[in-house]
Amino acid sequence: MKLILLSGGSGKRLWPLSNDSRSKQFLPVLQGANNQNESMLQRVWEQLGKNDLQQIAYLATSHSQVEVLRSQLGPDVKLIVEPTRKDTFPAIALTANYLYSIEGVSLQELIVVLPVDSYVEDRFFSKLKELEQVMQHTDADLGLIGVKPTYPSAKYGYIVPNSEKGVKIDEFIEYYQVSHFIEKPLEEQAQKLIEQHALWNCGVFAFRLEYIINELIHRKMPIQYEGLLKQYERIEAISFDYAVVEKAERIVVTPYEGEWKDLGTWNTLTEEIRTPLIGKGILTDDSSNTHVINELDIPIVVLGVSNVIVAASPDGILVSDKVASQRIKEVMKYQDQRPMYEERRWGRYRVLDYLNYSDGKQVLTKRICVSEGKNLSYQYHINRSEVWTVVHGEGELILGETRRYLREGDVVVIPATMKHSVRAITEMEIIEVQTGTELIEEDIVRLAMDWEEILQFCTS
Amino acid sequence: MKLILLSGGSGKRLWPLSNDSRSKQFLPVLQGANNQNESMLQRVWEQLGKNDLQQIAYLATSHSQVEVLRSQLGPDVKLIVEPTRKDTFPAIALTANYLYSIEGVSLQELIVVLPVDSYVEDRFFSKLKELEQVMQHTDADLGLIGVKPTYPSAKYGYIVPNSEKGVKIDEFIEYYQVSHFIEKPLEEQAQKLIEQHALWNCGVFAFRLEYIINELIHRKMPIQYEGLLKQYERIEAISFDYAVVEKAERIVVTPYEGEWKDLGTWNTLTEEIRTPLIGKGILTDDSSNTHVINELDIPIVVLGVSNVIVAASPDGILVSDKVASQRIKEVMKYQDQRPMYEERRWGRYRVLDYLNYSDGKQVLTKRICVSEGKNLSYQYHINRSEVWTVVHGEGELILGETRRYLREGDVVVIPATMKHSVRAITEMEIIEVQTGTELIEEDIVRLAMDWEEILQFCTS
Repeated sequence: MKLILLSGGSGKRLWPLSNDSRSKQFLPVLQGANNQNESMLQRVWEQLGKNDLQQIAYLATSHSQVEVLRSQLGPDVKLIVEPTRKDTFPAIALTANYLYSIEGVSLQELIVVLPVDSYVEDRFFSKLKELEQVMQHTDADLGLIGVKPTYPSAKYGYIVPNSEKGVKIDEFIEYYQVSHFIEKPLEEQAQKLIEQHALWNCGVFAFRLEYIINELIHRKMPIQYEGLLKQYERIEAISFDYAVVEKAERIVVTPYEGEWKDLGTWNTLTEEIRTPLIGKGILTDDSSNTHVINELDIPIVVLGVSNVIVAASPDGILVSDKVASQRIKEVMKYQDQRPMYEERRWGRYRVLDYLNYSDGKQVLTKRICVSEGKNLSYQYHINRSEVWTVVHGEGELILGETRRYLREGDVVVIPATMKHSVRAITEMEIIEVQTGTELIEEDIVRLAMDWEEILQFCTS
Repeated sequence: MKLILLSGGSGKRLWPLSNDSRSKQFLPVLQGANNQNESMLQRVWEQLGKNDLQQIAYLATSHSQVEVLRSQLGPDVKLIVEPTRKDTFPAIALTANYLYSIEGVSLQELIVVLPVDSYVEDRFFSKLKELEQVMQHTDADLGLIGVKPTYPSAKYGYIVPNSEKGVKIDEFIEYYQVSHFIEKPLEEQAQKLIEQHALWNCGVFAFRLEYIINELIHRKMPIQYEGLLKQYERIEAISFDYAVVEKAERIVVTPYEGEWKDLGTWNTLTEEIRTPLIGKGILTDDSSNTHVINELDIPIVVLGVSNVIVAASPDGILVSDKVASQRIKEVMKYQDQRPMYEERRWGRYRVLDYLNYSDGKQVLTKRICVSEGKNLSYQYHINRSEVWTVVHGEGELILGETRRYLREGDVVVIPATMKHSVRAITEMEIIEVQTGTELIEEDIVRLAMDWEEILQFCTS
């Protein structure tokens, strides 16, 4: 068995804590071990660990998430990176091709696709092994896990079985043949579906590797990893549901009875946040059922306001009625803003200040934190110059072709087109003032990433 | 007639927009001419202008407000500055001594004390001239303006007349003898007071200059300005109400029928703010009776939350039920924070970032804006070094004894104890990174303020 974890999403529904580079699965808002906050992704990863499943897991993701994934799960996590963001079918196909053509995984091997943003109990993951047994026991194309509904939700998809009685393969494991799917029914219809033993679709799909490879052959798509990678830009963006699930002839589902939640809105997410105040601030006693998540350095005071979520990050501040919070995506539709906070392979940065002058000049002030032993790429910028003030830690600077030691209090002036890099000996913090005409993250030419390689450019 | 405007208050009730250096009267939240925002102080000052009263007005204030007062009212406003903040009696006495001993004002001259933070109609100020006539017509020690109550408020002080019928001195002007005062009665009692023709006390007091000079003699306090200034540190901090009003024997009051409001809480203040959103953000249609005042650069989104005030400044973020907002002072009682935004004589600054390391080192990043033609004092710091990156405008720098031209992109490193100053030729913006062990505004030694004088220190 191999697992494909899908890490996607732009996270617009959890603005301002999520942005294009930090989707909801990365938000450190859940309570982990030792009262440390952890993200949904970290929770799922830990749960996989408890079930000995980490070593068979592959994360299908896009370029923009690589750094935060490595920073949250460690450097050894296996990533399959889409060159461009497409939909779930291409992402799953690329990972399948990798397993088939690079790792030489058998065509009979079971592949299980999992989302990384559902909130479940640990025993949900033991269901994966039961699903494997169900698939060995049947000739089904697809195997699913269906969650026993606890109320007639109008927000979820339902898996409808074709009989009320399941097939038991042993004392514990049971499965049903799937008749059809129904997406987001009205509450009344949902009630009837539950009476017919329908289950919630939680996005888990199991199939043999040959099933998807055959689908690719049928679609005249490459079945080699490198080949698909080359064509990736041009292939159709379609969902796995649409491309595969809806067309599969023999689908089985095994029921899971236990907690499962989609923490996709502030309303559902805050139900799982035990402490009402994360970050700096004050919440008065008469503010009931209110949650504050504050990632800014200044305090938030909530005085006598109940049933709201207040979330603040360098991107903005949300004050929303909990039930109304699902409308945030719609409200923010026409807002386009550069990310004000990002986690990177080498550390993280935060935008402190952003000025636009009428003559087209821009000024961006950032606080950059480079982790111990990490380095920025050897890079230069076309449209901006930078001034660095080292405020903490020590490291090595490369400016042009010259290497020198850098410590607290040092000031570095980097004109546009000047090549530069920095490596932190101890964790470093740098205040960076960018000035120029188009201050975007994309104005960067990377010449080398690896420090040993970068040193080759130095003449002194 | 001379006017003494009392500009005091620490402004804790309108946190986070007000702080120790920016009391509520300085907040630019009211709608002025040409749809420009103006402060309560600017509104009162304009209203004095319409009634030709600016030239007889003196502002009694404390050191911390001098710069914001000059910046909001211009350089010509007459300020009487308390060396230490005391209560209203010492502040009024100091101004009275200034008028008596420095300006040689007659002892028979009428002095009228006015608050700067009440929200009134223009014609309130024509009442001042009527009060002068009343005082000429009677032998009263004190003359007051009383506001005709519009509802039985439990929050105001009441002036109770000793007869139901006033004395008319002409067709328009009427006054009453005052029997006594009642502070913040219960609503029921307030209703009865209104039936007895009681009036709201709006903090306007008129007296002849000799009255307060005699009071000072009686208290064995100096009646010379310089003398009082020298003893100021040691004199008792008592209110004018307690020291004078409660002991006065003959008090008269003239009624004012018209709008008068104490904009001291977010609830009363927002009633006068016409636009529901000041600053960057979005307020959904179903957020009714909600006001957002955003002084940050990031957007605030309010989604489906009614009857709240959301106020954000570099000091913090408040989300409060409007009625509950009067509790803010109590909630913030134990919070002590450096100001994150200040207006100064030479411009303004904003704190962008503040870091505290475990080894006691601190880093403070500021954006400083120096107004065209203005200069910082010639100064040095004991415990911090500074790095300036000029991001906008041009000016002149003095570093040590050397004078040089400064423009966009220039970087200046200022070690601790190095003397420095800067003057803006055009409006300048500077990103300043401070590093040191105690980054407080008070770590400053000022050698000179005036630019011509500062130039004397230069050798080149």
